[in-house]
Amino acid sequence: MSTQSRRAGTEDFRASRPWPLSQVSDWQIETDVVVVGFGAAGASAAIEAAAAGARTTLFEVASGSGGTSAMAGGDIYLGGNGGTPAQRENGFEDSTEDFFRYMMLAGGPDADEERVRLYAEAALDHFDWLKAQGIPYRTSYLPGKVQAPGTGDCLIWSGNEDAWPFNEQAQPCPRGHLPEAYGELGGGGRMLLDNLAARATELGVDTHFDARVLCLVADESAQVHGVVVRLAGEPRFVRATRGVILCAGGFALDREMLREYAPVTARLGDDALSAGYDDGSGIRMGQSVGGAAIHMDEIFTTLPIYPPASHVKGILVNEQGQRFVNEDAYPGRIAIHCLRQPGDRIFLLVDHAIFEQPSEFSRIEIAAVGESWEEIERELEMVEGTLVHSVALFNQHAAKGEDPLFHKGAPYLKALDEPPFAALACHIGEAFYPYFTLGGLRVRPSGEVLTAEGEIIPGLYAAGRTCSGLPRSAEGYSSGMSLGDCTFFGRMAGRAAAGAAPR
Amino acid sequence: MSTQSRRAGTEDFRASRPWPLSQVSDWQIETDVVVVGFGAAGASAAIEAAAAGARTTLFEVASGSGGTSAMAGGDIYLGGNGGTPAQRENGFEDSTEDFFRYMMLAGGPDADEERVRLYAEAALDHFDWLKAQGIPYRTSYLPGKVQAPGTGDCLIWSGNEDAWPFNEQAQPCPRGHLPEAYGELGGGGRMLLDNLAARATELGVDTHFDARVLCLVADESAQVHGVVVRLAGEPRFVRATRGVILCAGGFALDREMLREYAPVTARLGDDALSAGYDDGSGIRMGQSVGGAAIHMDEIFTTLPIYPPASHVKGILVNEQGQRFVNEDAYPGRIAIHCLRQPGDRIFLLVDHAIFEQPSEFSRIEIAAVGESWEEIERELEMVEGTLVHSVALFNQHAAKGEDPLFHKGAPYLKALDEPPFAALACHIGEAFYPYFTLGGLRVRPSGEVLTAEGEIIPGLYAAGRTCSGLPRSAEGYSSGMSLGDCTFFGRMAGRAAAGAAPR
Repeated sequence: MSTQSRRAGTEDFRASRPWPLSQVSDWQIETDVVVVGFGAAGASAAIEAAAAGARTTLFEVASGSGGTSAMAGGDIYLGGNGGTPAQRENGFEDSTEDFFRYMMLAGGPDADEERVRLYAEAALDHFDWLKAQGIPYRTSYLPGKVQAPGTGDCLIWSGNEDAWPFNEQAQPCPRGHLPEAYGELGGGGRMLLDNLAARATELGVDTHFDARVLCLVADESAQVHGVVVRLAGEPRFVRATRGVILCAGGFALDREMLREYAPVTARLGDDALSAGYDDGSGIRMGQSVGGAAIHMDEIFTTLPIYPPASHVKGILVNEQGQRFVNEDAYPGRIAIHCLRQPGDRIFLLVDHAIFEQPSEFSRIEIAAVGESWEEIERELEMVEGTLVHSVALFNQHAAKGEDPLFHKGAPYLKALDEPPFAALACHIGEAFYPYFTLGGLRVRPSGEVLTAEGEIIPGLYAAGRTCSGLPRSAEGYSSGMSLGDCTFFGRMAGRAAAGAAPR
Repeated sequence: MSTQSRRAGTEDFRASRPWPLSQVSDWQIETDVVVVGFGAAGASAAIEAAAAGARTTLFEVASGSGGTSAMAGGDIYLGGNGGTPAQRENGFEDSTEDFFRYMMLAGGPDADEERVRLYAEAALDHFDWLKAQGIPYRTSYLPGKVQAPGTGDCLIWSGNEDAWPFNEQAQPCPRGHLPEAYGELGGGGRMLLDNLAARATELGVDTHFDARVLCLVADESAQVHGVVVRLAGEPRFVRATRGVILCAGGFALDREMLREYAPVTARLGDDALSAGYDDGSGIRMGQSVGGAAIHMDEIFTTLPIYPPASHVKGILVNEQGQRFVNEDAYPGRIAIHCLRQPGDRIFLLVDHAIFEQPSEFSRIEIAAVGESWEEIERELEMVEGTLVHSVALFNQHAAKGEDPLFHKGAPYLKALDEPPFAALACHIGEAFYPYFTLGGLRVRPSGEVLTAEGEIIPGLYAAGRTCSGLPRSAEGYSSGMSLGDCTFFGRMAGRAAAGAAPR
């Protein structure tokens, strides 16, 4: 047996197959807690595990920290408990119940109530923890429709809080909290991750970069005892006496998994949001020992119709010329409704008063310009009387500040009656519909990975997009929910693993 | 170890955890091939395994054969190769390429080309095999929109073959083949299964009823060696020297799995199509040894707007009064489009000329009656000018035999202009939207179960709705595709297992 394990090359290991414990003769590394991945979830898990006194070893496949988290705008979804400092200073008293209700709605039909409750009640403490890691936050507020503005400001509306039907069921409140960061893409994610990484190093986390975890090591009862990792081209056996925490991201880059679990992504083009390693290997390692992977069809995607914010006053129609959503919804929700239309052609209709050049990254192009809506309808080769009817009906009600069909909010209602008019192409497969995956391992709030029948797999934890967490419904996603989930439940997993009885 | 295994009670076994081979001291049954489930897939697998000379043992949790398959109308989707006898006799020369193309479209974005190709080329041979098992077929043809008519006739249109967009991409041809059966619910599924069960018995398959398979037995490399089955209240260890074939149906009855994998079913009410045992245990057993479960969000559901066939000439609108699908599509496709609408209220609009009482089982109720469409619109409390516009636009084009918006076929186009008019409520959660699950284990056409990385799990096979097979997209499903898949690929799995090298 020992000969066999010593002679095994890296090609003998597959994430979808655990390496049998009985075939491990020597452990090259022994530690208490192994963390796989150095994004927001892995960094938070490592910090808490090390802070709890566990020997903590982190393997990151890339050459530096951050993962896909560092590419994000960096807002974290926080509130409740009477409000964060930024909320209170700007007049928002956010109740825990409203925060909880909103996140339950956002989570969709299988929202994890225990997880949401825990997060809602602990959000302010978690915010304090983030600051204690060195992440700077101002208390300033930016109203209106903005995305990762890069102005250093803190509080923004980052979801559907003030859009129908959410605003009928929970008191609206802005909850996106950005670190004090500046720059074109916001820079907040990078700042967040740099601080977390520095803190992990400070706490003595033994970090290995360019380190690909190949598979789990498990016994015949599927208890997890460690991992096999490729270090400098060689497989190394790493024993984790207390637990392995999978924080390896989602599967936005694995074409085979996308086709089998989330085939809708084939329509979206090549705009996966990933720093390069969301290959699903974390999920496959969990599945390899019987972990269930749930909601694997759910993806986050978005159609950035703003900036410019004025375009929220436009209306979206499908290729039948029909409206289909309140255009003041979060762009992620809008994108999901676009995907439900019969056909890939989606148009944003604007008039002279609200038109501005769409942002370049959105790849939203001008499809037709005309002096009348009849002219636009003809140019788009739509059936006569379809688009024209939709605009007329919208205008008639918008003039009265109403949208009885889709309930767009009054601030965004304006008759589109100032020529020239334009139709902007937001077509699926052409415009920018970036995406990442929301499905993943089934876990308890502690990060313990569960089988399809709810049994705990001893020694295995997961956090971040390797699991199905707080954000598990594309329709309800709000910006900041994934990073909130990664950091908070990464911490929970780090603590749980550090506190597990050693084997 | 041996003490432990002898003392284990049935409660110690979970489908989601394989029983370690090392903990089995005595095998109470030794056989070559174990088949789990006696529906269409299991019966076909057992027949072929036994016919190939393998000792074959079948465990069925119910007290008799048939499973959910026996509840079906019994049509099997067949064609290509110039046509079946029924097709040729009625003037349909079905080419293998058209048959293949249609099934690829029906399979959706992850249609399994190898599987579809094999089925398309072998369909006539498979039909001969079905007849050789004793299943009687006439060659008569029923045109038009019918579902499991129970008239003893054979050939029917059972899918989207002649509906847009399918009819633009493959030459339309009817391919549903019903056994000669009579009765209100068709009776074809029962007749099919009775014949297959009798044949299995004749071939010496050792069949155990009231026999719940609890879990797989696997070694630490996840090779499958047998099963643990509950017989007369006691766990029994069953060794399968050549293979275990999981044909245990889908998970339409497991609320937890539905919530985690196919939460849309929560909207549909309690109309799962199941004989009582589609609890997902077959899928969970496959997952327990690293088998990937794919397309778990896909369900078959349907909205039986016909009979009466005249109602296909009506139009469907959502609660915004918008049309959304060609109403001559297969009702399964219609149901999926209903689920994409913003809201649960769906109406079928009919006029005096086409109205008949909806069939009782459909639970489609009259929501409004009026002398004008304006009156209907008001009664339904729709926004003024919405439903009326949709009807006017449809009527204007229907009068010319056209449907430029949704491409309904000419035979079903008629202006809805003969009062009185009616709106029939087809609401989601109220009308009959029966469903079963399409997601399941990832398998090769041979039935060999695969991990997420495509490795074969030695000793494990699956067929029928325990796997993701031919029908893997709700939008494209055609009646007869699931039974075609169950019987044909059940056979393939039976042969493959019987031919495997014994361990």
